[in-house]
Amino acid sequence: MFTATVTPSFGEVDGLGHINNTVLARWFEMARNPIFRIFEPNLNLSHDVWPLIMARTDYNFVGEIFYEFDVELRTYVEKIGTKSFTVYHEAWQEGRLCTYGRAVVVHYDFKACGTTPIPEDKKMKLAEHMVPEGLARD
Amino acid sequence: MFTATVTPSFGEVDGLGHINNTVLARWFEMARNPIFRIFEPNLNLSHDVWPLIMARTDYNFVGEIFYEFDVELRTYVEKIGTKSFTVYHEAWQEGRLCTYGRAVVVHYDFKACGTTPIPEDKKMKLAEHMVPEGLARD
Amino acid sequence: MFTATVTPSFGEVDGLGHINNTVLARWFEMARNPIFRIFEPNLNLSHDVWPLIMARTDYNFVGEIFYEFDVELRTYVEKIGTKSFTVYHEAWQEGRLCTYGRAVVVHYDFKACGTTPIPEDKKMKLAEHMVPEGLARD
Amino acid sequence: MFTATVTPSFGEVDGLGHINNTVLARWFEMARNPIFRIFEPNLNLSHDVWPLIMARTDYNFVGEIFYEFDVELRTYVEKIGTKSFTVYHEAWQEGRLCTYGRAVVVHYDFKACGTTPIPEDKKMKLAEHMVPEGLARD
Repeated sequence: MFTATVTPSFGEVDGLGHINNTVLARWFEMARNPIFRIFEPNLNLSHDVWPLIMARTDYNFVGEIFYEFDVELRTYVEKIGTKSFTVYHEAWQEGRLCTYGRAVVVHYDFKACGTTPIPEDKKMKLAEHMVPEGLARD
Repeated sequence: MFTATVTPSFGEVDGLGHINNTVLARWFEMARNPIFRIFEPNLNLSHDVWPLIMARTDYNFVGEIFYEFDVELRTYVEKIGTKSFTVYHEAWQEGRLCTYGRAVVVHYDFKACGTTPIPEDKKMKLAEHMVPEGLARD
Repeated sequence: MFTATVTPSFGEVDGLGHINNTVLARWFEMARNPIFRIFEPNLNLSHDVWPLIMARTDYNFVGEIFYEFDVELRTYVEKIGTKSFTVYHEAWQEGRLCTYGRAVVVHYDFKACGTTPIPEDKKMKLAEHMVPEGLARD
Repeated sequence: MFTATVTPSFGEVDGLGHINNTVLARWFEMARNPIFRIFEPNLNLSHDVWPLIMARTDYNFVGEIFYEFDVELRTYVEKIGTKSFTVYHEAWQEGRLCTYGRAVVVHYDFKACGTTPIPEDKKMKLAEHMVPEGLARD
């Protein structure tokens, strides 16, 4: 598990008084940094070295997030395929699970414009962060 | 179908040179305005009148979106339940489908803090915008 | 003058019920697209061809912007220097000026990592969009 | 001085490879939380209790911010007027000052729709965080 903490900002609150759903996309993306670093430790986004592309994200809003308190982001690997893997995300505030979701990330060669197999050593590093059985919600 | 057009901005391009995945959350949300207006024509977000809350969103990134061209957002209703409905979204650029996804919206009473049935007249208005059979991708 | 229209989204409303101040940064940036196109018509952001970098922006919030109505962005050139120029922005809603501000843009060579003079033909194109005397607010 | 640390996210990098200028608006807004708490400790945004409104912000981009490293936000009070005050912000990365700017915040009664004097006890709390002479850049 990777964890990160974010402090909500005034403008992330929406007109209903809680953190807007679109903010979670940015927060979960930030929480993927340590997973990205497995593939490119310096987070260099040059097409010559960056090997990942997003295929899909989803977000399930099960509790409101408020402006007042910090939010803890918990990040796991849920599935490791040949050419893609799935990240499982949770956002917690004050002991409540507020949002959970997934991101499907594809291993990609930007110069060749095509998917490529995830190297075995990267798979092993990803595997160190697998979500415990029974933890991830559908 | 509802349609809306957005012009990408400089900062919505990410380090890989295409529109960042998190931007679609905001664009699809804007594209839901006409659906929101079925429930609250003046988009008044007061807890006394606003009757909707987001339960889930997902995004499938099937083609890159570039800075240079406008993006067309196409919005449909896919499913109408008793207390919630599903919106189906597509983002097109230069004749290519680039992102598609769904939003599950719950009919909600913010004062009573609970779900409530969607009124029949609203269901009928939603039903005028059903996605044609076979169009929506899984 | 260049004009563009934006439709506010649900999440751009903040907890006080009006469009959050940070949103204007994105909207004004989008409104600069036609000015950027004077320098790079295809909006190609490669360091080999893109010649602009932001030095400064400011925003004056003189009226609230609401979710309900579209916003008109009006964009002018206010000053043309040797190596930089100033853009003047206004955001209008329902006939009210709501936000105005400026962006100082520097002509820059990303390969040489230094400022360069604005070519005369670009200066002439910029000059076609000068703000009328007396219009821009301090 | 108040300090806060933010971790850049993938999508905050723009097409030129550094953190986009619009992101600073959000970061500086988050950095104002402890100043907001002087006025409303629970960050309750109800019009009944929230007493602040933004009048102006500016941002000076003096160094690029990169994806790879955390960013330190330093926040001070620069000026305390009768009905408004000025916040001075800096963003630092790896020992370099990258962005600085100001926010003019007005003390406001949302029910009466008008400015009101800043209470003396709040002025004194603000005064504990004045920017040291000579530190703030023009």
